[in-house]
Amino acid sequence: MDSSRYNVAVIGSGPGGFAAAVRAAQLGAKTVVIEKSFVGGTCLNCGCMPTKFLWQALKLKQKIQKSYEYGFNSKLDPVVFSDVINKRDKNISNIRKGMELILSSYSIDVVKGTASFKDKNMLSVSNEGRHLDILADKIIIASGTKPSSIRGFDFDGNKIISSTDALSLTKIPKTMLVVGGGAIGIEMATIFSGFGCSVTLAECEGQLLPNEDGEISEEIKKNLSRQGVEVLTSCVNSLNNADKYEKILIVTGRSPVNDFGIDKIGVKTTASKFVETNEFCQTNIENIYAVGDIAGKNLLAYTAQNEGCIAAENAVKGNSLKINNKVILQVVFSMPQSASVKVVDFSNYKNVSLGKFPFTASGRAFIEGERAGFVKCAVDKVTQKPLAFWLLGAHSDELINTASQILANSANHISRESFFHPSLSESLLNASEDALGKCTELPKRL
Amino acid sequence: MDSSRYNVAVIGSGPGGFAAAVRAAQLGAKTVVIEKSFVGGTCLNCGCMPTKFLWQALKLKQKIQKSYEYGFNSKLDPVVFSDVINKRDKNISNIRKGMELILSSYSIDVVKGTASFKDKNMLSVSNEGRHLDILADKIIIASGTKPSSIRGFDFDGNKIISSTDALSLTKIPKTMLVVGGGAIGIEMATIFSGFGCSVTLAECEGQLLPNEDGEISEEIKKNLSRQGVEVLTSCVNSLNNADKYEKILIVTGRSPVNDFGIDKIGVKTTASKFVETNEFCQTNIENIYAVGDIAGKNLLAYTAQNEGCIAAENAVKGNSLKINNKVILQVVFSMPQSASVKVVDFSNYKNVSLGKFPFTASGRAFIEGERAGFVKCAVDKVTQKPLAFWLLGAHSDELINTASQILANSANHISRESFFHPSLSESLLNASEDALGKCTELPKRL
Repeated sequence: MDSSRYNVAVIGSGPGGFAAAVRAAQLGAKTVVIEKSFVGGTCLNCGCMPTKFLWQALKLKQKIQKSYEYGFNSKLDPVVFSDVINKRDKNISNIRKGMELILSSYSIDVVKGTASFKDKNMLSVSNEGRHLDILADKIIIASGTKPSSIRGFDFDGNKIISSTDALSLTKIPKTMLVVGGGAIGIEMATIFSGFGCSVTLAECEGQLLPNEDGEISEEIKKNLSRQGVEVLTSCVNSLNNADKYEKILIVTGRSPVNDFGIDKIGVKTTASKFVETNEFCQTNIENIYAVGDIAGKNLLAYTAQNEGCIAAENAVKGNSLKINNKVILQVVFSMPQSASVKVVDFSNYKNVSLGKFPFTASGRAFIEGERAGFVKCAVDKVTQKPLAFWLLGAHSDELINTASQILANSANHISRESFFHPSLSESLLNASEDALGKCTELPKRL
Repeated sequence: MDSSRYNVAVIGSGPGGFAAAVRAAQLGAKTVVIEKSFVGGTCLNCGCMPTKFLWQALKLKQKIQKSYEYGFNSKLDPVVFSDVINKRDKNISNIRKGMELILSSYSIDVVKGTASFKDKNMLSVSNEGRHLDILADKIIIASGTKPSSIRGFDFDGNKIISSTDALSLTKIPKTMLVVGGGAIGIEMATIFSGFGCSVTLAECEGQLLPNEDGEISEEIKKNLSRQGVEVLTSCVNSLNNADKYEKILIVTGRSPVNDFGIDKIGVKTTASKFVETNEFCQTNIENIYAVGDIAGKNLLAYTAQNEGCIAAENAVKGNSLKINNKVILQVVFSMPQSASVKVVDFSNYKNVSLGKFPFTASGRAFIEGERAGFVKCAVDKVTQKPLAFWLLGAHSDELINTASQILANSANHISRESFFHPSLSESLLNASEDALGKCTELPKRL
């Protein structure tokens, strides 16, 4: 049996584990990453990135079909979905090579296999019958989550499928029931419907994205319906009609990947079996940290990256960095995209004024042929500080970052000279000015 | 002779005049705008907007031609440029209708004609032989600029043309010499070359965009060359070969539109005949303000909009708002776009560290098929504050607004949790972290 000793061992190479490993190595730690599948984790291999490629392909398809808006005459042959998938996989593989190159440039060892705790400093890694013991001063758990199924409807990889299974399809099914109207369900319904599948999207709550602004949610529902998706809300028994569909895609949630002996060494978990961490990303076992999905705070890639950097720095240099999120940021790849960002204590503000700027009032949106959607902004009535933005429209996934910087840096107001004209981004300014009753780019309110 | 009396009269309905008029009306002023041509001024009718449409059309053309990157098989018929122009003009006309609607919703009178000062409160407006006197307590000059020609090469609207003339072409010339390698020259060369014209771009200084970062400038030059544009720098005698070209487009600068009696009433002008204004956007004549291009501070639409709002508020409520620009922002519609933003006192910082993040290292750039270009960031070595960003790449014109908000709000650092992943915008964060030697998304520096 081999044995290796490290300053820092990281379990998982998704966004959280990857960032943790690189930051630890940057700080001089001898670092190993244990990965049971592909470098990049869920985000790169069966999450954000492959779905974004398909979404982007769909967007381009629509752009080509609407190119007459620029006076063009173009023709798109019927899409061969497996060709799109091939291109997607080539892109993913190239991005993965880039990540592997970064790990190797920092002399970070990558051990392929399944980790399990022997004690608080010792991991045993199994790979096709071979075992390797890894001894580490500090261990960072970044094992992520996996799709959850529904009782009685276990994933079979054929008819009842997870988001991971859906992304391995190389042919568009004729019919699909998507169960779960959260961000992933909406994204999947948008993509599969866009490429020709007859999709029903079922959500048990009263609206899609139950925690999102009602107007955004309603608009997403309308757009999905226009795109041919049958959207069912307040629908608790969609699976009663399971026979009707070629595929049942269940995207009702994700559960922690925690089956590697953390209970044995006494790592505390929550009621739903996520790993408990403090503000330093540290578990109850002093030398063990946990970041990203497995820590259960916010199952999003950038949260994982942020926590990965914090945990690595604390693990190597002693606890000093705290999680200090100033904003809550969300993006949904509906068509068009939607996004929102709020200051973390937004619900504490009672005296709020709302502004709205539709993209039909943006010259740049005309020019881009992207007039659907709007920006909404909430400002504090007393201080006039912007507190939240909601976006629906083209490039919302980029524009939301501008909104986020405004909120994260506690801007007292937004100044026009800090926005390029003509840009879509100006719409953030216009919405905030509308909230203050002084937008110059909208007709007078009646 | 008719006579009308107003609280505020605005000369010109471009971005500055339009914003000034609407803000004045919002503050309760009885307001008139005098426009000698089309509502929207240079920006809407023969500047930013029509060029952006053509640029966007070119971008779509290239996207269609590269759609095999998504596994698509598409065909674009040869572009009929006049069809593109028709679509462009329809869009411009729709945007103009929107602006007219806004003016009318605020009961702002729009008087068509050429204004001239009779005294400091009285304007005479002539239109096809008819005259109207307008009396106003406050007058805001927003008359803009017009293209300058070069001595011996006066615009003839046929062979020797201005940017305005170029935008009225409905056929792509075979050959064109573009004189002037600033933002407009680069944009024009990009567009006309992209639609099939053989373009030579000549700049008398040693680099395109003489005041821009050398690396950005060099990269734009390389991209233009790849796109088939012949780029000549340090070229003072390009016009010696004027005979060789079907069209000579002169875009070496713009001169103030000031031929309406401002000298007669004693409005002070600069050596280059722009109107002198103080920090309140006020001229030396107390009741007369001037905004935008004619004030000569920064010949850009958003500067005009900002000054328009400031001048209107000061004119109506008494001087209180000052121009207080915190950043200097520039965008150039090369292909791909480039942009930069700096804190206004950037040149005072001596102890600066530079970071760079190429889009080839961005997963999202792979997904979008937009791997050309990079983000550079300058941070203060002592405080770690970001001070400047330079971008070259797709969506730089939107991404620069995110960078701008970071600088305008004096962010002490940039936090990862305020960026959505995967986005191109994250590249700003990555470049700033590279400047601090801690970017986790790049291989170790050797």
